Amino acid sequence: MEIIKSPDALKAALKATQGSVGFVPTMGALHIGHKTLIQAAREANDIVVVSIFVNPTQFLAGEDLESYPRRKEADEKICSLAGVDYLFYPDVSDMYGEDEVSLIAPDVRGYILEGTSRPGHFSGVLTVVNKLLNIVRPDRAYFGRKDAQQLMLIQTMVKNLFMDVEIVPCHTVRDSDGLALSSRNAYLSADERGEALKISRALTKASHLVGKGVLESDRLYAEMLAVLEPLEVEHVAIVNRAFTPLDTVEVGNTIILVEAVVGTTRLLDNVWI
Amino acid sequence: MEIIKSPDALKAALKATQGSVGFVPTMGALHIGHKTLIQAAREANDIVVVSIFVNPTQFLAGEDLESYPRRKEADEKICSLAGVDYLFYPDVSDMYGEDEVSLIAPDVRGYILEGTSRPGHFSGVLTVVNKLLNIVRPDRAYFGRKDAQQLMLIQTMVKNLFMDVEIVPCHTVRDSDGLALSSRNAYLSADERGEALKISRALTKASHLVGKGVLESDRLYAEMLAVLEPLEVEHVAIVNRAFTPLDTVEVGNTIILVEAVVGTTRLLDNVWI
Repeated sequence: MEIIKSPDALKAALKATQGSVGFVPTMGALHIGHKTLIQAAREANDIVVVSIFVNPTQFLAGEDLESYPRRKEADEKICSLAGVDYLFYPDVSDMYGEDEVSLIAPDVRGYILEGTSRPGHFSGVLTVVNKLLNIVRPDRAYFGRKDAQQLMLIQTMVKNLFMDVEIVPCHTVRDSDGLALSSRNAYLSADERGEALKISRALTKASHLVGKGVLESDRLYAEMLAVLEPLEVEHVAIVNRAFTPLDTVEVGNTIILVEAVVGTTRLLDNVWI
Repeated sequence: MEIIKSPDALKAALKATQGSVGFVPTMGALHIGHKTLIQAAREANDIVVVSIFVNPTQFLAGEDLESYPRRKEADEKICSLAGVDYLFYPDVSDMYGEDEVSLIAPDVRGYILEGTSRPGHFSGVLTVVNKLLNIVRPDRAYFGRKDAQQLMLIQTMVKNLFMDVEIVPCHTVRDSDGLALSSRNAYLSADERGEALKISRALTKASHLVGKGVLESDRLYAEMLAVLEPLEVEHVAIVNRAFTPLDTVEVGNTIILVEAVVGTTRLLDNVWI
């Protein structure tokens, strides 16, 4: 595995290679969820590139940019063992200059749900993912379904801007107790972790109810909120795959999403139905 | 020459070709300035692509989107005679959908000079040029220096977003009386055209003064405004190639710009010193 810091050096290295390229962009603090993305990339491509970059433009003022977990040595080891060919590890100054052109999220789908609680967050995500995709020029790029709105917006960007890459969604990996893996889980105290389980439990409850034929969104919202109580719930949403809210679940085309704050930690989870 | 309307069809056609691709994006109503861009592309590349698309997102409310000159047959003839391989002629619905990801011009350089009189204009330009460059994936793309701020912002976009294309600036073509060629010159009455010549005369005056050693911007502004009078001048600016205003001309690194409204027609011109 080669570790590369400069975008130009990575471009040059990749131009000298042949075969398909799979790309997994991350913010580091890698866990088994990331490893699943890397494995998917490894299986389908000749070359695998992972980037680790804690992107400042997707953090709002007062968010956890400074304290976001950074684990360089462990991350390098995980990538190396997972068969990564190139680990791209740029500094902020490698990725951003002054007074830049940037991307802006769609007016509607970028500013609902998590976009409401974090205005501007998705514009920062899209800007850095656009840069990364242009540097790496992968055939396929891998993203987790846990960040479902982010995934949908990246797919939207690729379509709107006519980018040549296949976006591959990967399933959410959970701990044995059901908690969706996230680098931010490291912030949770033992008590908070117990509380956080309510999120996956609420989603499991909704899935079971849908399985029993309960399709009305209002009924599902009420049942989920009863499970989530007393968490600080940012939103519970039932949307189709294009993120239009649904009054009634459409099996095969629905995502049920929860965003909640546990202690000071914002957690996301969802199920695809 | 093949005329193609659909982005996907153009992508497919270009993927089936070999060799370098030169690209000239236009809004049609082609004149000798455009022909110069096409010739430059023809000389340096195996395949030449011209796009004709009157991009709605770069027109502000109340601007001339509806009346912008459209001359499909003449434009096709000009492209065919100039040796264009592919003429890309999409509809608005081929290029834009609903609730899209878009690009936004830099906070400073996108909102000075023409960006002040046309707020949002350059974000529309960057969005469509990003789309077009991703569709065509040219080795080189050709832009006129007449639209100097646009050219600088496109170069900025390519750098900021790590795009793989060489932006080739081409010199401004003028009528024999000095007026810089522009599709919008078609709007000018005979009297207005006479008035419009003050723009190139003011720039020529400034060039001559610089040649005589007059380098102070304030002195040059005053001399140019005396020539431009009584035109409605939006701005006269002396900036370096990165568009930072200069108190003193730096020979080899300066652009002197004029934007003025003649009748109802906005005209731009500049000299590179």
